[in-house]
Amino acid sequence: MNADTRNDRDVGSKKIATLPETLAAGEQRIVLAHGGGGELTRRLLDERILPRLNNELLAPLADGALLPPMTGRPCLTTDAYVIQPIEFPGGDIGRLAVCGTVNDLVVMGARPLALSLALVIEEGLSFEVLDRVVGSIAAAAAEAGVPIATGDTKVVERARGDGLLITTAGVGEVPSDVQLDVHRIVPGDRIIVTGTLAEHGLAVMAARENLGLNSGIASDAAPLGGLVAAMLECGGGTVKFLRDPTRGGLAGVLADLVENTALGVEIREEALPVTTAVRHAAELLGLDPLNVANEGKIVAVVAAGDEQRVLQACRAHPLGRNAVCIGECVAASPPLAEMVTAIGGRRIILRPYGEDLPRIC
Amino acid sequence: MNADTRNDRDVGSKKIATLPETLAAGEQRIVLAHGGGGELTRRLLDERILPRLNNELLAPLADGALLPPMTGRPCLTTDAYVIQPIEFPGGDIGRLAVCGTVNDLVVMGARPLALSLALVIEEGLSFEVLDRVVGSIAAAAAEAGVPIATGDTKVVERARGDGLLITTAGVGEVPSDVQLDVHRIVPGDRIIVTGTLAEHGLAVMAARENLGLNSGIASDAAPLGGLVAAMLECGGGTVKFLRDPTRGGLAGVLADLVENTALGVEIREEALPVTTAVRHAAELLGLDPLNVANEGKIVAVVAAGDEQRVLQACRAHPLGRNAVCIGECVAASPPLAEMVTAIGGRRIILRPYGEDLPRIC
Repeated sequence: MNADTRNDRDVGSKKIATLPETLAAGEQRIVLAHGGGGELTRRLLDERILPRLNNELLAPLADGALLPPMTGRPCLTTDAYVIQPIEFPGGDIGRLAVCGTVNDLVVMGARPLALSLALVIEEGLSFEVLDRVVGSIAAAAAEAGVPIATGDTKVVERARGDGLLITTAGVGEVPSDVQLDVHRIVPGDRIIVTGTLAEHGLAVMAARENLGLNSGIASDAAPLGGLVAAMLECGGGTVKFLRDPTRGGLAGVLADLVENTALGVEIREEALPVTTAVRHAAELLGLDPLNVANEGKIVAVVAAGDEQRVLQACRAHPLGRNAVCIGECVAASPPLAEMVTAIGGRRIILRPYGEDLPRIC
Repeated sequence: MNADTRNDRDVGSKKIATLPETLAAGEQRIVLAHGGGGELTRRLLDERILPRLNNELLAPLADGALLPPMTGRPCLTTDAYVIQPIEFPGGDIGRLAVCGTVNDLVVMGARPLALSLALVIEEGLSFEVLDRVVGSIAAAAAEAGVPIATGDTKVVERARGDGLLITTAGVGEVPSDVQLDVHRIVPGDRIIVTGTLAEHGLAVMAARENLGLNSGIASDAAPLGGLVAAMLECGGGTVKFLRDPTRGGLAGVLADLVENTALGVEIREEALPVTTAVRHAAELLGLDPLNVANEGKIVAVVAAGDEQRVLQACRAHPLGRNAVCIGECVAASPPLAEMVTAIGGRRIILRPYGEDLPRIC
């Protein structure tokens, strides 16, 4: 956000009036010139974006933001959000962008320090929607306790009229006592999920298919810094691996886990926290809840014997009340992720192929 | 880039073959499923993106990248690139994204440490173009000496068929002896530009208007870490302000300077480094070179008396050979940016309104 915050165009005897003071009624939509980097871009930032996001890191509006010095290891992450629709039960693209990037930092064991925010707005987006999304970004950032420190705003030609893409990046600091390392996982380690599965993806799909009012499912998008901090407070080596099961769902995380450890994974279908509403919506849409994105949950691997302590820590946090142990890592050749079904069968869990859920985040 | 690099789908007696080993001829374009976060996303990353970008920070493919500890102040920046066309004389969207973010760090006085890369690919983009852009990203990152440490890849529905949006973020470290501060500027301080103006914007506009072959103008997109380091080596307090005149051009930077210092700015038209080719192309397109984006130039404010030393440092660097002093900061009420024209007149320089040059970066 390179533009300056000052609106003062009074230059004394040479007063310059190049723009109307406010946009006329009926012009309350984004136009291409809002993205040109000139006076109109500055006005968009000054009037609609900066007032909602302001903080002392962002305020200088330089080419970048200077952050406080850090002592731990820096961690950098980024996510591009192309979700459709941009507003859905339980959140919008703004909340999602903040939570997703914060969560990518916290599963690395990092304390989030600052976010960057890049908006690519489609010509024709209403100011009303933009205002709601920017407000939602501000609220989620406040909830996560992390400032939007810098940003960029561009405008592209109209394609579908409802478009807004957001890319967030985040910087965090990993304290020296964090020992997350997938290579520390051994057979017998327990797999925990911190709450009910598949709500984000199904809420968005239901909204897209106009099932919104009936499904009763809301996105779980939430910043998980507090929950993860509580888990890590269980002691240095207890938690060995954390991941947020977003695109690709729990199945994608378990597939990664198998590949990175060369161990098998065995989960119990009965233990999976899936609500009745999710089960019904998933059936209706022809989706497997294991493959569906979550935006407010953590999959953790913890040392055998420590799982009750970690579960208690999770359940004491509002975002981890439904935490459960769903299975364990096992020595197996070949290493596979498998689910023991309710009737005692075994099903191999594969990474989703990828066509089920486009534009879910 | 959450997918793992291993292609090993051999799981022994339970060998799983869900995908053809390679895409058939005629399928060499991006499809929506490449963005779904599943197996096809992983293959896109493994086959086309990661091999070109690989480095030790990116290799773990975790939710974020762990960077080496830093002692200076961290600096975070981001830019979204929506340029059309995505390939143009002198560069492409990939080179631009790397250079732009690197340059935003270096004008903050930061040494770039790591970049993140978010690709939003439009369905239908040819693998050939994608490969060239990713190659260009890798080359520019190598030229800048900064790794792509983490990333994200999404796919959106076809709108215009040629689409790729890139958002880069960068983290750098500001050494404690850097004293860039716009508030240190006093009347008499000199304004330097490190080379010829307006080449990026005009190269892109000429390409867009199909004037490419005739204009002879190439984008100046280049990473400026080395040039800025040479300038800063002139001594602690010598350089007071640095900015890369991208969107909004030199005019935008001078307008910011006036507003942030409450001083006037006076530049001499005769001193402006504008090539004949740029002057002609700008006339043809009805553009003012002062308003046109640069992607490989720096505007600097230096203490009066130090300008020759800084100019020498610039000219000794391949990217600063045409550096010149274009004017100075002046006490003026009201504070204005003004240009003394070749015939001795005075022209007020305003921040561009914003509609001249959409999608130029």
